[in-house]
Amino acid sequence: MSETIRHACGVFGIADHPEAANMTYLGLYALQHRGQESAGIVTTDGTMVYDHRGMGLVADVFSESILRNLIGPRAIGHVRYSTTGASDLRNVQPILCQYQRGWVAIAHNGNLINTDELRSDLESRGSIFNATTDSEILAHLLARSRKDDFLEALQDSLLKLNGAYSMIVMNSEYLVGLRDPLGIRPLCLGELNGTPIFCSESCALDIINARYIRTVNPGEMVIVDRKGNIHCHQFANRKRVAQCIFELIYFARPDSWIYGKEVHAIRKNIGRVLSREQRTNADVVIAIPDSSTCAALGFAEESGIPFDWGIIRNHYIGRTFIEPTQRIRDFGAKIKYNPVKAVLADKRVVVVDDSIVRGTTMRKIIKMIRRAGAREVHLRISAPVFRYPCYYGIDTPTRNELIGATHQVEEIRKQVRADTIHYISIPGLLEAVHGTDKEYCTACFNGKYPLRFPGGLPSDDNLRLWKETVQRNEDIPVELAVSEP
Amino acid sequence: MSETIRHACGVFGIADHPEAANMTYLGLYALQHRGQESAGIVTTDGTMVYDHRGMGLVADVFSESILRNLIGPRAIGHVRYSTTGASDLRNVQPILCQYQRGWVAIAHNGNLINTDELRSDLESRGSIFNATTDSEILAHLLARSRKDDFLEALQDSLLKLNGAYSMIVMNSEYLVGLRDPLGIRPLCLGELNGTPIFCSESCALDIINARYIRTVNPGEMVIVDRKGNIHCHQFANRKRVAQCIFELIYFARPDSWIYGKEVHAIRKNIGRVLSREQRTNADVVIAIPDSSTCAALGFAEESGIPFDWGIIRNHYIGRTFIEPTQRIRDFGAKIKYNPVKAVLADKRVVVVDDSIVRGTTMRKIIKMIRRAGAREVHLRISAPVFRYPCYYGIDTPTRNELIGATHQVEEIRKQVRADTIHYISIPGLLEAVHGTDKEYCTACFNGKYPLRFPGGLPSDDNLRLWKETVQRNEDIPVELAVSEP
Amino acid sequence: MSETIRHACGVFGIADHPEAANMTYLGLYALQHRGQESAGIVTTDGTMVYDHRGMGLVADVFSESILRNLIGPRAIGHVRYSTTGASDLRNVQPILCQYQRGWVAIAHNGNLINTDELRSDLESRGSIFNATTDSEILAHLLARSRKDDFLEALQDSLLKLNGAYSMIVMNSEYLVGLRDPLGIRPLCLGELNGTPIFCSESCALDIINARYIRTVNPGEMVIVDRKGNIHCHQFANRKRVAQCIFELIYFARPDSWIYGKEVHAIRKNIGRVLSREQRTNADVVIAIPDSSTCAALGFAEESGIPFDWGIIRNHYIGRTFIEPTQRIRDFGAKIKYNPVKAVLADKRVVVVDDSIVRGTTMRKIIKMIRRAGAREVHLRISAPVFRYPCYYGIDTPTRNELIGATHQVEEIRKQVRADTIHYISIPGLLEAVHGTDKEYCTACFNGKYPLRFPGGLPSDDNLRLWKETVQRNEDIPVELAVSEP
Amino acid sequence: MSETIRHACGVFGIADHPEAANMTYLGLYALQHRGQESAGIVTTDGTMVYDHRGMGLVADVFSESILRNLIGPRAIGHVRYSTTGASDLRNVQPILCQYQRGWVAIAHNGNLINTDELRSDLESRGSIFNATTDSEILAHLLARSRKDDFLEALQDSLLKLNGAYSMIVMNSEYLVGLRDPLGIRPLCLGELNGTPIFCSESCALDIINARYIRTVNPGEMVIVDRKGNIHCHQFANRKRVAQCIFELIYFARPDSWIYGKEVHAIRKNIGRVLSREQRTNADVVIAIPDSSTCAALGFAEESGIPFDWGIIRNHYIGRTFIEPTQRIRDFGAKIKYNPVKAVLADKRVVVVDDSIVRGTTMRKIIKMIRRAGAREVHLRISAPVFRYPCYYGIDTPTRNELIGATHQVEEIRKQVRADTIHYISIPGLLEAVHGTDKEYCTACFNGKYPLRFPGGLPSDDNLRLWKETVQRNEDIPVELAVSEP
Repeated sequence: MSETIRHACGVFGIADHPEAANMTYLGLYALQHRGQESAGIVTTDGTMVYDHRGMGLVADVFSESILRNLIGPRAIGHVRYSTTGASDLRNVQPILCQYQRGWVAIAHNGNLINTDELRSDLESRGSIFNATTDSEILAHLLARSRKDDFLEALQDSLLKLNGAYSMIVMNSEYLVGLRDPLGIRPLCLGELNGTPIFCSESCALDIINARYIRTVNPGEMVIVDRKGNIHCHQFANRKRVAQCIFELIYFARPDSWIYGKEVHAIRKNIGRVLSREQRTNADVVIAIPDSSTCAALGFAEESGIPFDWGIIRNHYIGRTFIEPTQRIRDFGAKIKYNPVKAVLADKRVVVVDDSIVRGTTMRKIIKMIRRAGAREVHLRISAPVFRYPCYYGIDTPTRNELIGATHQVEEIRKQVRADTIHYISIPGLLEAVHGTDKEYCTACFNGKYPLRFPGGLPSDDNLRLWKETVQRNEDIPVELAVSEP
Repeated sequence: MSETIRHACGVFGIADHPEAANMTYLGLYALQHRGQESAGIVTTDGTMVYDHRGMGLVADVFSESILRNLIGPRAIGHVRYSTTGASDLRNVQPILCQYQRGWVAIAHNGNLINTDELRSDLESRGSIFNATTDSEILAHLLARSRKDDFLEALQDSLLKLNGAYSMIVMNSEYLVGLRDPLGIRPLCLGELNGTPIFCSESCALDIINARYIRTVNPGEMVIVDRKGNIHCHQFANRKRVAQCIFELIYFARPDSWIYGKEVHAIRKNIGRVLSREQRTNADVVIAIPDSSTCAALGFAEESGIPFDWGIIRNHYIGRTFIEPTQRIRDFGAKIKYNPVKAVLADKRVVVVDDSIVRGTTMRKIIKMIRRAGAREVHLRISAPVFRYPCYYGIDTPTRNELIGATHQVEEIRKQVRADTIHYISIPGLLEAVHGTDKEYCTACFNGKYPLRFPGGLPSDDNLRLWKETVQRNEDIPVELAVSEP
Repeated sequence: MSETIRHACGVFGIADHPEAANMTYLGLYALQHRGQESAGIVTTDGTMVYDHRGMGLVADVFSESILRNLIGPRAIGHVRYSTTGASDLRNVQPILCQYQRGWVAIAHNGNLINTDELRSDLESRGSIFNATTDSEILAHLLARSRKDDFLEALQDSLLKLNGAYSMIVMNSEYLVGLRDPLGIRPLCLGELNGTPIFCSESCALDIINARYIRTVNPGEMVIVDRKGNIHCHQFANRKRVAQCIFELIYFARPDSWIYGKEVHAIRKNIGRVLSREQRTNADVVIAIPDSSTCAALGFAEESGIPFDWGIIRNHYIGRTFIEPTQRIRDFGAKIKYNPVKAVLADKRVVVVDDSIVRGTTMRKIIKMIRRAGAREVHLRISAPVFRYPCYYGIDTPTRNELIGATHQVEEIRKQVRADTIHYISIPGLLEAVHGTDKEYCTACFNGKYPLRFPGGLPSDDNLRLWKETVQRNEDIPVELAVSEP
Repeated sequence: MSETIRHACGVFGIADHPEAANMTYLGLYALQHRGQESAGIVTTDGTMVYDHRGMGLVADVFSESILRNLIGPRAIGHVRYSTTGASDLRNVQPILCQYQRGWVAIAHNGNLINTDELRSDLESRGSIFNATTDSEILAHLLARSRKDDFLEALQDSLLKLNGAYSMIVMNSEYLVGLRDPLGIRPLCLGELNGTPIFCSESCALDIINARYIRTVNPGEMVIVDRKGNIHCHQFANRKRVAQCIFELIYFARPDSWIYGKEVHAIRKNIGRVLSREQRTNADVVIAIPDSSTCAALGFAEESGIPFDWGIIRNHYIGRTFIEPTQRIRDFGAKIKYNPVKAVLADKRVVVVDDSIVRGTTMRKIIKMIRRAGAREVHLRISAPVFRYPCYYGIDTPTRNELIGATHQVEEIRKQVRADTIHYISIPGLLEAVHGTDKEYCTACFNGKYPLRFPGGLPSDDNLRLWKETVQRNEDIPVELAVSEP
């Protein structure tokens, strides 16, 4: 993708391994693409609990001595996306807290949408909140549950949550992997020498030679007790599910399985459908590396137009990059991408990308491609038009910033200066993923949010406030509720 | 002091200043001796609240750009002592949290002793705890108070606390500086251009040209509202108070005022009484720099024996220091101290120090002094024998590690190899500070803890557990309760 | 490439630009793949000279304030590969030194082979050496030249050097870009708004919107004087040249031009010839990313076997990576690569890589590919067998470590467990690059070193010593001299 | 001292110890006050040589693993003062270089004054210079010496140097400690278990339990060969020597011996003479800590006026300190110093400091003292008026910046707002150090530079240029030569 959309998180948990902290470290490392802001690991030896968190990449947050001090055969970990706030340390996961029945640690991928409602209720009953993450809410609900049994209390608490949550929960007794009833975010179950592992994507299993078993089902809790016994329990059962289709298009690593599907194969399929939907006369198919490569390969296969490596990506980009004071044309895009003239000169070029967010970077890239000699540029997007923000765990711009929300497709084409443009259709996409709109969430394309918002859909301004402030929004003005499942 | 006793914290708050964050930064910098582990500042502009915390010295935690982002004319800050735990980030203060009546920020110096009781109660009513600091408890109590008015809720909550707490509390309406009813830790009130300032010691006023007004009284809350009006309110009134006398002996900077007294003058007085209690024939009086210098000067004045600079302290000690594998005699002491032969050779030397904790460093120093040529070494301690751990905010060793708890004075003299030894008496000390045992806490010397422990005095092992674990101690075995106010 | 071969360096120079330091910073950033150990920039405003160097990536070595202090419109820069030596700061380039005719700064890519001879001679005449880089020698030769004119002295000095040197030399008068008579390392000439630029590869021009003009010719100096006039001067003229063919196969970025050729087009050509040399029945062609992708695309085009993305590379690898104590199978390779099962399962797979150095990583990768379900693995190498170390600026293992030097091709196939193996032939490679063995150095494949070694070819042990010691090797034992141009 | 004068360096060398690098690390740590900019160690095992250098404090530059890699029983080390130049890495010592007779490492404390002459000559004969330190010159001279024997070559080379140089020189055969013929900078000889040690001050011996033997004499080389045999050789013999008297007044640690004298005792003596020269009616004597404390104690003893601790110094000052935008009165001084009201209020105060450089900080301090309630402030300076810059290794301001050079004493008194002022007289100072002007350099007080400058005394502007530029000054305009030995 030419513009980065930041993902919420990646999670990992392992039930019983002599090097649980090391395994979690490696698993998080493989999930690094799901979050580069911060990382954390919590371990337990059954009686004591150990934790370390920090800002930065997994390899920077943990040192050998830190991992050595994360004692015990059971561990969960979390990586989180990058935000600008300097004081976000309070939000680094996994959450670890004490309550009347002992301690509980939670690693959460996703976003709740009834946070305000739940927080209001909890606060009115005397709860305090230390972080701005909604993940803290589950801990409060657990602490207030009347059920003595941890698992019953957990189930009760989960049923109060509304939104996206793939979670790994650990206390002194249990390790539990679970997905919300709609299964919005992915969670995989694997095993290594008989011990269960939970992780956002299967690539975290490959790195430690673990075996992929299956996806955790929407509304399912997979419970591992102290002895390692596994118990699968469906805590909620919905007629439909709503797995985030963008995970398949863009977020997941192509070598991963999620939702029981192989990402690379799905993406190639998307490329094939994309090609069929709008036949194109061209000489070469190129991708915006690296995320669009699979779709571009599928497009090339289907169309018979050869695939080539038309744009090179510089992988040395560090945390800070100094911009010259005298501005260089299209500087931002240049730092990251460079066209290959041999591929593009005098060619009719199909450019496959997996979405257009604001459109500014795409315009720069197409300019580069033309300057490298391309005669025609045909833009093909392996996602439908991105029109609605996501409230389930992806850091999307507000509607005003989304070019797909404010412009018609033809206007977008003109803005980015492509000769032709085509976005895959929603039906085409569902065909490509072998699914239906009862299985996948496509709200970012059609606004059909699968979950009713408590006070109506947040407006753009509220969305912004909600992100920027550490304070609870007292009252969110009600907007026309377009969100019907 | 030859061995370091780590202090709990230093706090600072300013009500209304165009550079509130900068002023707080400077104030914390002046209070750096009270805590070197971490630092934090919370500011507010009335509607929003901004915060930054980090591990390390004040000058390392804050940069210009960080301070610039701490917006608003009202601020509180905190410095904390150094512990070994790598994951102590959760404990960095000030605490900032949300509850039903908005946000509240708390900077706390001291230690509660009914933590377990309060936590048990709060947890049984559904509260969760994120940190291991007991400071979090006040936030919970506030959140559960039935009083709608913040100040009433604050008073109600404070009255449930048992222990040492000098605090600065800030919400969107008020800035409050307060001390527990016994006034165990210090807190000063000052002003700069008419705006009130709270700080642990008056040296934090001097650095920003602010004026010292008075000490906040035990059991008093000094409330500053949004408009800057000040209201003083006595929320508790005890017949006795119990100000930590060790602050006067050792912790506070000599240029500070605390408890309404000038520290340097008090320390010189202590030195004078010390000299009178046990007349000594000697040629020179030296101090273990820097903390014992005042007492040594007083000793010298009273005794007529000249003061000289017999031991030099190296101030370049960094965070990590590499010890050679082939051990050097008395290495640890040598890194920090070096004797001055010109002062010591062939002399009868009075060495003044302000306490003996484990005794090991003192033995090395006396060895150094003798090797530098001293004929006699007369050890004079400006505190009574340190026999009991502190539970009110000072990180003391357990009783087993305290040489004063396990050895008679004569045995200590032998262990450290002094020719004579004298500790100031408790009455002598009280005389020197112009106080009575109804005004000062002398529990570390005589075990007369001014507060009843809920489940009896913690045993050494529990004390250790209490510090090391992140888990709540389920049940602390009852020990013979020697603590009567 | 599955195993990394470290390159010597990248160089950049710009004659006259208001933001010369910033432009150099960006140019070095684009050349980062040529050296990640250290970076340096020297600038001049005509009278004064300014410099900064440091260990690490370009983006880490330079900050905005550092770049602001690198004053003046003329600059040269250098990036260097990573070694283990902690004390290598002395070797960070560009070199800057003073001599009788003022100061001179040198950025050098390549390696001299008559270093010992020249050092001996210089030392016998009283020179001292501060660094272990041979680049320092040119400065000494300049300082001892009898020619008063800088350019004459430079030419005189260059003619004494034997080896690989693409250099950018700057003094108060001139900026000179030059290549050794055999042109072993690349150097490009570009321009931005009329001011000349020198750089190792043209990708450093693209990032600043500069225009590629041509390669600097072997034996040519391109001189820019104070006024910006350019003068091209052939200081040496050889019947043959010996441009490093490995630059085209592996080192250069595919979006670069070097030696007047487009790297990507050449690599695809190599893939095509590779495919023609050994026809293969297979279902899919995959590359070891990223460096082999171009050759794999060419192979796929020529063979008609579809290209796919069979191995994913993790780009988040940090400086340090912690290996678990309980070893994971093929750990090292797993950290970097993960196979895509959808591409490989049940397939006959052609794996294209651009060389095999030690063979160990390749074996692990093939194991991964088989475990992902591949039925057959056909290894195709886009370079001939790598049999001889390079002495001209590439950090190659000694012959004992080179699997190509110690094993027959069939033995290599067995070791890496491929079903078939084919290396491109030397004639095939030359055909693919449209060149002859009078234009390219192929010594690493056939031992035909284009330059006579002063004391015979260094033996492996001497090579190691030469790298590890900071001391000059007093006498290198003579070996059978196989190196004839 | 209220204003810091930066010193050139500290040096350390040890001939034969199983932990030579560790011992050197500790020695440098004890000499940290002589230079905080950078540190370096070079070791040898007889055949190989190992080195590490870095910017920062000793404890930051060296880690355990770095020290472990500094192999061998023989080592030299160096600490250097802080300058502003970011790129000063080239100047970090010890110097290590190769020349025709092997390698040589040099640690140099001091400054040469015939640098330009020697550099011109060396450059005209073809030498190049990499650093801006004049220490490099000795290496060049060694490399050009016709003497085959190292010690003869060393002696020959030394005799060409003009200026201040206390050096430790190490090659594969010898460890040599030496002082220039005038003995301007100190160098001590000590021993540990029979192995010789060289160091700038004896405090570096104390930290490793080594024994002080004697000062190395002016013009003496103390040579330790491979077997540990010691040979003392007087390579130059002057009728007078010129030991820097400022070392005794200010630079050296009070617990050190230098020039065969105990610094603390000398400083107390200076204080005594100071008191006798100008009898003062006052209530209290205070020092500007820490450097003036000894003199103040001597002053108090002699005058009978009691010494007290009137100004506290904050030792937590970090590398960067952020100044508030809205200026605080006398901010700079406040960050470092705070007065003790109890000591000063209503008192007639004698303030002892060891020099006034620019006078600005002193004015702020006196203001503080008055604001703390002092009735009178009598300033007593334990050095004569500082009127002339030092060219022998101390980083002094130019004459224009020296308040003593531009103002009469009475004017200085007015500027700093003291009630009375008195500087010790030169004869008084010499009396106090038990020396004569044939033994000590007092040039900074009376301009009697003990060495003739080659081209006359440098003017202020040239002095500045000489420091700021990395370029050799082509021609320094001749100024009236006031410098007669």
